[in-house]
Order: sequence, then structure tokens, then C-alpha cells
Amino acid sequence: MQVLHTYQELQVFRKSLDSVGFVPTMGALHPGHASLITRSKQENPQTIVSIFVNPTQFGPNEDLSRYPRDLEADLKLCQSLGVDGVFVPTVAELYPFEHAITLNPASDLLGHEAEHRPTHFNGVLQVVLKLFNLVCPQKAYFGKKDAQQLLHVQRLVADFFLEIEIVPCEIVRDHDGLALSSRNVYLSASQRQEALKIPQALERMQIAYQQGMRDTASLIRIGLDTLQGLEVHYLSICNHNLEPLAQVKSNQTLILCAVQVGQVRLLDNLWV
Amino acid sequence: MQVLHTYQELQVFRKSLDSVGFVPTMGALHPGHASLITRSKQENPQTIVSIFVNPTQFGPNEDLSRYPRDLEADLKLCQSLGVDGVFVPTVAELYPFEHAITLNPASDLLGHEAEHRPTHFNGVLQVVLKLFNLVCPQKAYFGKKDAQQLLHVQRLVADFFLEIEIVPCEIVRDHDGLALSSRNVYLSASQRQEALKIPQALERMQIAYQQGMRDTASLIRIGLDTLQGLEVHYLSICNHNLEPLAQVKSNQTLILCAVQVGQVRLLDNLWV
Repeated sequence: MQVLHTYQELQVFRKSLDSVGFVPTMGALHPGHASLITRSKQENPQTIVSIFVNPTQFGPNEDLSRYPRDLEADLKLCQSLGVDGVFVPTVAELYPFEHAITLNPASDLLGHEAEHRPTHFNGVLQVVLKLFNLVCPQKAYFGKKDAQQLLHVQRLVADFFLEIEIVPCEIVRDHDGLALSSRNVYLSASQRQEALKIPQALERMQIAYQQGMRDTASLIRIGLDTLQGLEVHYLSICNHNLEPLAQVKSNQTLILCAVQVGQVRLLDNLWV
Repeated sequence: MQVLHTYQELQVFRKSLDSVGFVPTMGALHPGHASLITRSKQENPQTIVSIFVNPTQFGPNEDLSRYPRDLEADLKLCQSLGVDGVFVPTVAELYPFEHAITLNPASDLLGHEAEHRPTHFNGVLQVVLKLFNLVCPQKAYFGKKDAQQLLHVQRLVADFFLEIEIVPCEIVRDHDGLALSSRNVYLSASQRQEALKIPQALERMQIAYQQGMRDTASLIRIGLDTLQGLEVHYLSICNHNLEPLAQVKSNQTLILCAVQVGQVRLLDNLWV
């Protein structure tokens, strides 16, 4: 496994490869990331992982400086999964100019996360485009947990004619049901107990849906009942263009949830 | 020569080629464009030209609707120059989404044109990035006449790690000295006489420089004297980062000029 620090090293390495699957990450890798890497390994001759805590997708009062980092463990995991190359750039390496060119996300995919993190997707698109240009992958793997991010990346690829297949990967949950996230380490034991209401809410909504409930207002009521006591940033039911739905439509519906638990914002969702 | 109307046609055609030189244009081709195409032909096994009047780089009160168009003549010229493929997309083809992802140019390269056309370079970067992703050229050819555009495209390539060599090409002038531009057709005979003050001003500044004048304020005075009677939008002497210079530095200096003649904005410049 090659560890590449500069973009030139990555470009040279890339030219030695044929067809590449790409897993962009911010490190602090957990089994959710491992599932993306494993899937890429299955579907591509070579796999490149990037580990980069991208400053431009953090707001001024967010957790950039304390975002969990453990490069040694991350590299060990990548090695054990058979990753071919890991790109670990510095901020200066990926942002060579004091005055950067920036991107504005598609306005029809805003709201939800963007209401709470107004420049978040600008930063996501900026770094993803840079990484895509450097890695030149045939496929790129993104977790469904960050559902809205996935929609923005799919839009980027379509709007700018990138020949990259975006592969959405299933949410991986801990034994207690909490969706895996690098930010879960911030939770105290009691906060974690509270946080379990999130998957419980989604599960109850899913069961109600499976029992025939289609009315989204009623489904949301079930979810909010379960989330009582938590600071819910949003719980909404919409289509894949993030337009709110009055009735659930199967295979076209997304239940999105963001909840603040202590200092931690937790996301979870359900693709119905 | 293949004429390609859809992006899928272009992508299929591109896969049949090896190494490509690319000349993006807005059509109404003149000998300036021809010189770019000829250079690309010399330096690349294959050459692709795009002809697309990009709406997003025009301001609301600009000349989008009356911008000169002559596809038949353009295709004939491309054919005669041995172009391999001409991409002629519709607006809907290049802008498939109602809500597009947009780009913000590097803020240190604004001023000058951007003061008069505040969203111009946003549109230029947007369309150039799309075209680069579709054409995947090894080299791309841009005229030095649109000097600031050239700087923005070079920045795009560097900031987003595109492996494309941007080749700046010399300004081509008409027999009377006026820099070639598709917009010159808007000029009446008397306006054209007036417009000749622009290359004359630059020439006098160049002669003064060659005779040893380095002070930019004095050089600009010579230029403005020559341009008397015209509406000068700017005449400035700066380095390649568009920072104003007090003294000319050889090989690092750009003399930029924009002048309004009747309804036509004319650009010209000198790379010293």
C-alpha cells in the first residue's frame, strides 16, 4: 500500500493504475468506511482512499479543530483491507491558493443541512471536485448516511459531466442501532442512550409505513414523539430532489433526520 | 470532420481519440480563432473545437441575443483547417439542470473586466470546466486578447488539478492594427476609425517602454492621451496576478485596456 502526501505523488501513482474505485474520507475510520472500502475492493481492480479533514466544509463555530484524527489506525485499517493507495494531503496541498475558486451548490438541493451549515456543501463540492480530478476514479463510494451530501455529489457529477459512477452505500449501524459516525466518539454514555431515540424513531416510522401508513404528517408525528426530549433540527420526508411529500412514494422517498445531542449533531435517515 | 451535438456523442467520439488539443470558441470564427486551431493542429494528433455562445457569461444587459452567429461558415473553416471534431451543443445540452452548480472566480483576479461584467468570469469558469470534462484535452488554446480570462482559466486548472496545459496564443490583428474580435462586426466605419486609437495607444506605450520609460503613471498618461475622445473603461498596468505596478517589470507585466466604442466594448492588451 502506498501512502501519498503530495498531489504529484498521487498523479504519478494514478498513472500506474488502470481502473480505480475511490473512497474519500475525513479519516477516523470506522466500520462504515470499511464497508465502502470493501465494496470498492470488490468492484474495482484498484482502490484509493483519501484521508483529509476538509476545512472548507466546516463552519466557523464547528468542530474542525477537535474533529477526531487517528492516522496510524486509519492506515492500519486501509492496509488490512487491501487498499492500494492512501492519499493524505495537507491543507496547503489541496488549497494551493490564498484566494480559492469556490462552488455554489444547486439551490434546489439546499435546506435541511444547509439551513444549519450554510456553506457546508460549498466546501464538500470544492474538495470532492479536486479529489475526483486528482484520483480520476471510475467509481466513487459514498455512505447513504450523509444523504444530502450524496445528492449534491451526484448532481456535481451530472452537471459537470464527470464520467464517475457514484455508488451509494448502505448505512452501517452499531450493535445498539446508532448509525456509525466519526462524531459518535464525542457522546457521553448518557448522551449515547439519548441518541438511540434517533434510530428508534426511524424504525417506528418504517414500521408504520410498512403497516400501510402513507401520510407523511402522521409519520412525522410518530417520529417526533419518539424523539421527545431531543433538540430536533429537522425530521422531514421528501423525494430525492428534497421536495417535501404529502404522501410517501416507495423508492422515491427519503426520511431525513438531524438531531443535536449535547454538542454533537447527529444525522440519520431512511431510504423508503 | 465529425460534428457532435450531444455530450454523449462527444464522449463516444473522444474515446476513439488519443491525445487531443482543444479550442473552445463562441463561434463567429475569425483568423484569431484560426490561429488557435492551426497551433493545436501542429501540437496535437487530434483537435476538437467547440462552438457555443455561453449564456452564463453574458450579463442581463449584454449582447447575448445579438452575438454574431454563422455556424455554416464556422464549420467550413474548421473543415478547411483539418479539425477532427466540432462540438456544437445546445444550451439545454450543456446546462441540463434548472438550478445549476456555479463557480466563483478567485477574488484576487477580479477588478478590470469583472467590475464592468460582475458575473462574467463565473460563467466562463462554469462552461470551461464543463467543456474540459467532456473533451478531456491534453492542451487547450486561449487567445491572449482575453488576458484576464486566460488568467482565470489558468487558475481553474491549477486550483482544481486539471492535467491540461493551457496554451496562451498571440493576439491576431487586422491589417489596420485592430485586435480581431467577433464583436468588431458591430462597428460602423467611423467607429472602427475611432477604435484604432486602441492599438495606437498600446503601441505608443510600448515604444516609450522600449525607449526606457518604466514609470507606469507616465506610460498610462501616454496611452490615455492617445485614447482621448473614447470612453475608456480601464487602462492599467499590472503583473500577472493583476496587482497594479508602479514600475514595469519585463516579462511580468500586462497592459490591459477596455474601451467602449458606441455599443461595443473592445479589449486589447500588451504582454510586456
